[in-house]
Amino acid sequence: MFRGLSAFPLTPTTEEGIDERAFGALVSRLAAAGVDSIGALGSTGGYAYLTREQRARVARLAVEAADGVPVMVGIGALRTSQVLAVAEDAQKAGVSAVLLAPMTYQSLTDDEVFGLYESVTRELSVPLCVYDNPRTTHVHFTDELHGRIAELPNVAAVKIPPVPDDRAAARQRVAALRAQLPDTVSVGVSGDWAAATGLNAGCDAWYSVAGGLFPATALALTRAAQAGDAAGATAHSERLEPLWELIRQYGGLRVMSAAASHLGLATEPNLPLPLRGLPSDARRRLVTVLEHLALGTSA
Amino acid sequence: MFRGLSAFPLTPTTEEGIDERAFGALVSRLAAAGVDSIGALGSTGGYAYLTREQRARVARLAVEAADGVPVMVGIGALRTSQVLAVAEDAQKAGVSAVLLAPMTYQSLTDDEVFGLYESVTRELSVPLCVYDNPRTTHVHFTDELHGRIAELPNVAAVKIPPVPDDRAAARQRVAALRAQLPDTVSVGVSGDWAAATGLNAGCDAWYSVAGGLFPATALALTRAAQAGDAAGATAHSERLEPLWELIRQYGGLRVMSAAASHLGLATEPNLPLPLRGLPSDARRRLVTVLEHLALGTSA
Repeated sequence: MFRGLSAFPLTPTTEEGIDERAFGALVSRLAAAGVDSIGALGSTGGYAYLTREQRARVARLAVEAADGVPVMVGIGALRTSQVLAVAEDAQKAGVSAVLLAPMTYQSLTDDEVFGLYESVTRELSVPLCVYDNPRTTHVHFTDELHGRIAELPNVAAVKIPPVPDDRAAARQRVAALRAQLPDTVSVGVSGDWAAATGLNAGCDAWYSVAGGLFPATALALTRAAQAGDAAGATAHSERLEPLWELIRQYGGLRVMSAAASHLGLATEPNLPLPLRGLPSDARRRLVTVLEHLALGTSA
Repeated sequence: MFRGLSAFPLTPTTEEGIDERAFGALVSRLAAAGVDSIGALGSTGGYAYLTREQRARVARLAVEAADGVPVMVGIGALRTSQVLAVAEDAQKAGVSAVLLAPMTYQSLTDDEVFGLYESVTRELSVPLCVYDNPRTTHVHFTDELHGRIAELPNVAAVKIPPVPDDRAAARQRVAALRAQLPDTVSVGVSGDWAAATGLNAGCDAWYSVAGGLFPATALALTRAAQAGDAAGATAHSERLEPLWELIRQYGGLRVMSAAASHLGLATEPNLPLPLRGLPSDARRRLVTVLEHLALGTSA
């Protein structure tokens, strides 16, 4: 489950609700491309902006459209009680795993973060991936905290933020974290521009935003790294640098939103207000990049 | 409305719901003490953790218990549509003003923040206070953005984060912001330790966490500053430094939660999980500070 390419699709959303047809088609497309797992309702899937009912519905649609490919869904919320409710719905929907980021309004202490994972893991019957995403949660996990959480039942994976660009520093980063974790816990990288470096540094998985829309491209990079072809994985990543640059500058969500629209896979707007799409100059850059890299034409 | 002391009470909350009796008593106590306004459902009032129904109910209880003292309520939420719904409920409850912080999960651009205020102010029939709280929202307002928002209809006030400790720097901070705002827009300070400096530097209001539990003490400081007795306001603040130190270290919410419990004004736990109260060593320090400063005995 926590190996290889985990592709994170958008959940096209308007003020009227979720575009279920478009979402189902995005998930089916990923399953057909052969991704290893699907991460529905991740940050790119807009979990933080949806109601409990919408999240339960999207989890069911994802499992259905994934056609046997394992589905993981995000269960984060500001309150522990909300997380527990969403987790129950997700399990009823038949997901294979859950992904939990400690959302915050008031900042959380390490003991409060640990307490959240303790309460939630106790109630699970599927494995949990710890979602370490300081950019959206503003929680800064120490390796010691990762170690404490990884001892809890059902914790099977950690999704980490981008590793350093430098290869040696990336290896050191992954090794330092692994030293705090049981051997059974998978370590996966996010931040698409850091994927090749992360996989080459020994990460087990890539939790990929771009993979949610360009699965063939993301699979080529992943399979190269998995085969031990570090140079090949790096070459794939370097070719994609113009896309990574846009993602770093505007956020993966806005870039994927505009890209899905350009490719006819979602209508616009498809993000929940107050989020808006890419500004028009960035949109023009994106279209040039997609055409230049031939992204989307064969996924 | 946006002058003098605005006191922000806790909303005592458990996993079972809101302690309505305790909340009503906290608000009545503030009204009886003669605060200028009451800021219910602020960050200290836990607005971010409550459902729409709970927030509507708390707004009604606040207006009722305030007995004619103007009530402002927080209407922030992650989605514009949720903010609009909560604002409508608040106005039906009879509030005198609303307070809006741009909550975030994905970070927002300046245009997205502006768009949120534009959509919301259009629908209001009461004045709005812009809630600039980078510690919880991670939105960093520029003065230029404040200026753009202040031109919108119904924007009557800005609640700013702590001013610098240095008096000249504080005056400069307030003057720089005022230069971007229409004269009719009030500027108020938050961060209790910065209140005396902020009021002395020309802020119109103090949005006070400690004032939500110790209104007489907060009023003494406010009235001194309003009477032009800068040294007196500073002396009040310096006396309270041991309390400000705890608030800076643990956050106003956790400190007020423990203080309310110590004073018999709320039972514990009274914060929504995953938030937990003060650690026991900090709690012992707080009790010493409350007793030493004779805080709470006569409010």
